[in-house]
Amino acid sequence: MRPKVTVVGAGAVGATTAQYIAQRNIADVVLVDIVENLPQGKALDLMEAGPVLGFDTAVIGANDYEATAGSNVIVITSGSPRKPGMSRDDLLRVNMNIVRSVTEQAVAHSPDAVIIVVTNPLDAMCHVALEASGFPRERVLGQAGVLDSARARAFIAMELGVSPRDVYIAVLGGHGDTMVPLPRYSTVAGIPVTELLPPEKIEAIVQRTRDGGGEIVKLLGTSAFYAPAASVAEMVEAVLLDQNRILPASAYLTGQYGINDLYVGVPVKLGAGGVKQIIELKLTEDEQAALEHSANSVRVLVEAMKNL
Amino acid sequence: MRPKVTVVGAGAVGATTAQYIAQRNIADVVLVDIVENLPQGKALDLMEAGPVLGFDTAVIGANDYEATAGSNVIVITSGSPRKPGMSRDDLLRVNMNIVRSVTEQAVAHSPDAVIIVVTNPLDAMCHVALEASGFPRERVLGQAGVLDSARARAFIAMELGVSPRDVYIAVLGGHGDTMVPLPRYSTVAGIPVTELLPPEKIEAIVQRTRDGGGEIVKLLGTSAFYAPAASVAEMVEAVLLDQNRILPASAYLTGQYGINDLYVGVPVKLGAGGVKQIIELKLTEDEQAALEHSANSVRVLVEAMKNL
Amino acid sequence: MRPKVTVVGAGAVGATTAQYIAQRNIADVVLVDIVENLPQGKALDLMEAGPVLGFDTAVIGANDYEATAGSNVIVITSGSPRKPGMSRDDLLRVNMNIVRSVTEQAVAHSPDAVIIVVTNPLDAMCHVALEASGFPRERVLGQAGVLDSARARAFIAMELGVSPRDVYIAVLGGHGDTMVPLPRYSTVAGIPVTELLPPEKIEAIVQRTRDGGGEIVKLLGTSAFYAPAASVAEMVEAVLLDQNRILPASAYLTGQYGINDLYVGVPVKLGAGGVKQIIELKLTEDEQAALEHSANSVRVLVEAMKNL
Amino acid sequence: MRPKVTVVGAGAVGATTAQYIAQRNIADVVLVDIVENLPQGKALDLMEAGPVLGFDTAVIGANDYEATAGSNVIVITSGSPRKPGMSRDDLLRVNMNIVRSVTEQAVAHSPDAVIIVVTNPLDAMCHVALEASGFPRERVLGQAGVLDSARARAFIAMELGVSPRDVYIAVLGGHGDTMVPLPRYSTVAGIPVTELLPPEKIEAIVQRTRDGGGEIVKLLGTSAFYAPAASVAEMVEAVLLDQNRILPASAYLTGQYGINDLYVGVPVKLGAGGVKQIIELKLTEDEQAALEHSANSVRVLVEAMKNL
Repeated sequence: MRPKVTVVGAGAVGATTAQYIAQRNIADVVLVDIVENLPQGKALDLMEAGPVLGFDTAVIGANDYEATAGSNVIVITSGSPRKPGMSRDDLLRVNMNIVRSVTEQAVAHSPDAVIIVVTNPLDAMCHVALEASGFPRERVLGQAGVLDSARARAFIAMELGVSPRDVYIAVLGGHGDTMVPLPRYSTVAGIPVTELLPPEKIEAIVQRTRDGGGEIVKLLGTSAFYAPAASVAEMVEAVLLDQNRILPASAYLTGQYGINDLYVGVPVKLGAGGVKQIIELKLTEDEQAALEHSANSVRVLVEAMKNL
Repeated sequence: MRPKVTVVGAGAVGATTAQYIAQRNIADVVLVDIVENLPQGKALDLMEAGPVLGFDTAVIGANDYEATAGSNVIVITSGSPRKPGMSRDDLLRVNMNIVRSVTEQAVAHSPDAVIIVVTNPLDAMCHVALEASGFPRERVLGQAGVLDSARARAFIAMELGVSPRDVYIAVLGGHGDTMVPLPRYSTVAGIPVTELLPPEKIEAIVQRTRDGGGEIVKLLGTSAFYAPAASVAEMVEAVLLDQNRILPASAYLTGQYGINDLYVGVPVKLGAGGVKQIIELKLTEDEQAALEHSANSVRVLVEAMKNL
Repeated sequence: MRPKVTVVGAGAVGATTAQYIAQRNIADVVLVDIVENLPQGKALDLMEAGPVLGFDTAVIGANDYEATAGSNVIVITSGSPRKPGMSRDDLLRVNMNIVRSVTEQAVAHSPDAVIIVVTNPLDAMCHVALEASGFPRERVLGQAGVLDSARARAFIAMELGVSPRDVYIAVLGGHGDTMVPLPRYSTVAGIPVTELLPPEKIEAIVQRTRDGGGEIVKLLGTSAFYAPAASVAEMVEAVLLDQNRILPASAYLTGQYGINDLYVGVPVKLGAGGVKQIIELKLTEDEQAALEHSANSVRVLVEAMKNL
Repeated sequence: MRPKVTVVGAGAVGATTAQYIAQRNIADVVLVDIVENLPQGKALDLMEAGPVLGFDTAVIGANDYEATAGSNVIVITSGSPRKPGMSRDDLLRVNMNIVRSVTEQAVAHSPDAVIIVVTNPLDAMCHVALEASGFPRERVLGQAGVLDSARARAFIAMELGVSPRDVYIAVLGGHGDTMVPLPRYSTVAGIPVTELLPPEKIEAIVQRTRDGGGEIVKLLGTSAFYAPAASVAEMVEAVLLDQNRILPASAYLTGQYGINDLYVGVPVKLGAGGVKQIIELKLTEDEQAALEHSANSVRVLVEAMKNL
C-alpha cells in the first residue's frame, strides 16, 4: 500500500502542496475542498502532468473525506484570509471554526495520521487541531519555521552570491513579528554567517525575513504559495519516510524553554509518528526574552479563543 | 555560465513553467510580464522555495527584457483568453499582436534562442513568432502534443490501473477538435493498447483527450496549468541538455506529410538548436485525411491573420 | 517505519543494487554476505555518500540475517560464476544450494517479503527460491527482462541518435540465447521501430541484445553490474511504492501462453505484493515457438535439479 | 551542446564518478584508462543503465584522449596505490609521473577545462597538475574535504539519529592525519554540535573521520569508492552548473591563512571556471597551528618531488 496524504484546502497553498508531494512519487494525495469541482479540477490537472514528470502516484480531488480514509498525514491549509472590516477576533473565530470542523472530519477517517497545520494564526490553530483531533501532542504540529528559515537562507545566499543549499539558520518563535531568527546559529557550509556578513546586513536580513510574508502579498496582492507549499512538503516527506530531520516547527511545549502547554516554534526531530524530540537550544537572555514574548502572543490568542 | 530561459507571461501557465524549470536546477529563469510586481512576486516566492527544494538557480521577475539577455530558450505563454462577445477574429488579432510584440522584444536580447510558443491558437501563433523573430524555422516551435499525449497516457493508465510511465501514444495535428491521436501507435511497455483495451474504450479516451482542455476549464473555471507547464518544461529541458527526445510538437512542415509551409503537430527530434528532424509516420488514409483537415484549419487562421 | 530491503550478496551487482536503492531514499537497505567485513565495508562507504547525495536512509552490512528482519523485499544476487572445469550441472548444484540456503535464512526473518532473484541460471533459481521460501508464486519473481529490454533500448537509441527514454521494447523468454525480443512491439515515442530502422539493423540489435551479457564480460573480464543493478532497483521500487509498472520479469506461469508451472520471462504488472497480473501478448506462430523453446530449456534445468 | 566531463582512470573511484555524473543527466562523460577494454566495458554497462535510470547523456570509454576534446571538467583519479616494499618517495614518483602525463594529454584536448585532482597524495598531485597543465590556479583544485566532511557528517548523524542532510561541518587541511576538522563550525540545522554532543564523542568522531579512509580499507581490502566518487561528482556539478557552492577543497593559497604558493584544504566558492573565492575562517591559535602543520607536510612533499 502506498502511503496517503490528505491536503485540506485546494487554494494555492494546498494545491501546490499536493503538487510537490505528488512529484516526490512516495504517496497518493487526496485534495479536499468544500468548493465543488475545484479540488477535482486541480487533481486532474496534476494527474495529467504525471506521465511527463514520471510519477505513478494518484492525485484525487474530493468534496468530502471518504477518499481520505487511512491517510498517514493530514495537511490543513483551509482558512479565511483577513478581510476588510474583520477584527482580529472575527478572523480568529472564522478560522477556529474551519480548522475544528475539517480536523474532526479528517481524523474520523484517519485516526493514526500526523496533522500538519498551515492555517493562520498558526500556533493558535495548532491548539484547535490538537483539541479537535484528540490526538497525542506529538502527532499535531504546525508549519512556519521551515518557511521562515528558507526565506532567511534565500536572502543570505543572494547577499553572499552562494548556493542556498549551503546556508543554514535556526528560527524560533512565531510566524511574523514575533519570529526569533538566531543569526548566531546561522552558517554557510558550517561557517558562521557572522564571519561573512556585517551585523547591519544580518539585521536587515532578519527584518526582511520577519516581513517575508508581507513582502510577497505586497507584490502579488495575495499570499505566497510556492515556498510555503515546498516547506510543508518537506515536513510531510520527513514523516512519511521517517527521516529524523531536524526542522523548525510549531510544537507543543511541556516545559522546554521554560514554556508549558503551548504551541511555539522550536527545532524538532521529525519522523514517523510526528515530533520525536524537541531540541532545546541554549539561548542568550535576549533570545529567551524574545521567545517568551512570542509565546505570550500565542497565549493571548489561545485565551481569546476560549471566549469566542 | 548557467543556461538561461525566458518565460514570457507570469500567469498560471508561465509561472508554473518557471517553477518546473527552476527545480530541475539546470538553468536560470527570467519571468517577464507587463503587469507590475506580478513576475517579481512569483519569482521571489520561487526563489524562497530554493533552499528547501535544493536548487541553486536564480528566478528573476521583470517587466522588461533587459534581464533576459542571452537566453537559450524563450517560452511565450502570454495571450488573452477568449472573452464573452469576442469573435474568433477579435481573439486572433489580440493574441497575434501580443505574440508579435513579445517575440520582437525577446529576440532582440536573445538572438540565438529557441522559441517555444504556448499561446493559443497555437499553430497560428507559431507562424506569428516565426515571422516576428526572423529565426530559422527549426528554432521556432509550439507546445501542444506533449500535453495532449500526456493526457491520453494518463487516461489509459487510469483505465488499465498501470503506471503512466509505461504508456506511450503518438498524437498528430492540432490542439483540440482537430487533434489526431493514433491509438495504433499507443503502447503499454511496448504492448499495443489495442491488445489491452476494447475499441470503444479507446475511442472514449481519444475523445476525452480532444476535450481535455475543456474538461479542466469546466471544473476550474480557468485553464489547466500544471500539465501544460510540465509539458513545456520537458521541451525546454530537451533543448537545454540536447536530449534528442522524440516529442510531438507544432513544427514548420516543408513537404513532410504532403504539407507545405505550415505549422502542424508532428513528432520531432528535439535537442540543442531546436527541431533536428521531423519524423514521418506511415499514416492510413483516414489518418492522413484527419491530419490534412487539421492542417487546413491552421491554414484558414494563417490566411485570416493576413487580413487583420 | 521506513520500508526495508535485503540484498543478499555484496558483490558488484548486489552492492550496486544497494547503492541504487539507497539513493532513491525510500527504504533502508541491509546488505548481507558471508564474506566477513565485505558487506560492512561497502555499506559504510555508501552511508558516507549519504550526506553528499542527500539521502537519509540507512545502509547496513551484515554477515547474518538478524538485521534484515521485516524486510519488504529480498533481492538474491549471491551465486557462483561458472569456473573453468565446472560442468553445467556442477554450476547448477552450487547455485541451487546457495539460493536455497539464503532464501531459507532470509524468509525466516521476513515472512511477508517479495523475493526478486538475480542469480543465474535465472528461471531455474526462481524455482529454487519459490520452493525454499514456501511463498505464494506472486511473491517470487526474477530479474532478467528489464535488463534485456534496457540493453535493446540503449542500442536502438544509439542507432537512431535519440533519447533512450523514448524507446520501448517488449522482451520475452530467457536471459541469453533463448531470449525472445519482439521488435514488432518496439516503439520510439509510440512509433514502431520497424518504421524507423531496416530489418537487418533490427536483427543485429536483437542479436547484440541476446549477447549483451557476454559483450560486457569480454570487455571487463567480469560480469556487468551497473545496468543489472539499475534493473533490479527499478523492480524493487515498483514493489515498494506499489507502482503497477508493466515490466518484463521471470514469473511463474499457470497456463498463460500455454505454459504451466514454469518460470518464464513475460510482461507482468508489478506492485505491492509482487506480481499482480501476467500480461498475455498475442504472439505470432514464430514467436510462440521461440517462447516454448525458451520454456523448454528452463524445464530441462528444473528436471536436472531434481536429480542433483 | 551538452557539457562534457573527462574522467581519467576507470578504477572503482573513476568509474563510480562517471556513474554519478551520468545519472545527473547534465553532461556527457568520457572515461579514459590505459587498460584496454576496461573503460569501454564500464562505459557500455553504464549506457545500458540509461534507459532504466532515465538519463540521455552519453558515457564513452576510451584508451586515448581524442574523444575527450572540449571537456568542461577533467577529473584525474589515476594513480598507483602504495604497494608492499614501496617507499613514500617511490609512490610519489610513480603517481607524479602518472598525473603529469595524463594532465598533459588531457589539457591538450581541453584547454579551457577545470581540473579536479583525486589522486593521492592529493595536495602534492594538485601541484603536479597545476604545473603540467599551465592552467591558472583557479582552474586546478583537489577533492578531499567534501569526502572528509561527508564522513564526519555521516558519523554525527548516526550518533544523533538524525538526517545527515541537516548536519554540517567545516574541514580544513590535508586528507588523513593532518586533517583539521572544526567542530566549532559543525552544526545540525544551524545548532552547534557542541550543544548536542559531549566533547569526547566529538573528539571520537573527529578521529574516526581522520581515519575514515583506513577504516574502509581495513574492511574492504581496497579503497573506498562510493563516497569519494559522490564527492567528486558534487564538485563537478558545482562547476558545470555554476552553483557557487561553498565546499572544502584543496586550493592554491596565495597568502590566505598566512600560507603562500601551496595547495591546502580550505573552503572555497566553487562555480563556473573553478575556484571563485577562497573563504578565510577566523581560526583559533590551535586551529591555525594545526593548519600550518598540515601545510608543512604538503610543502615537504612538494620539495621532495623537485628531487625525484
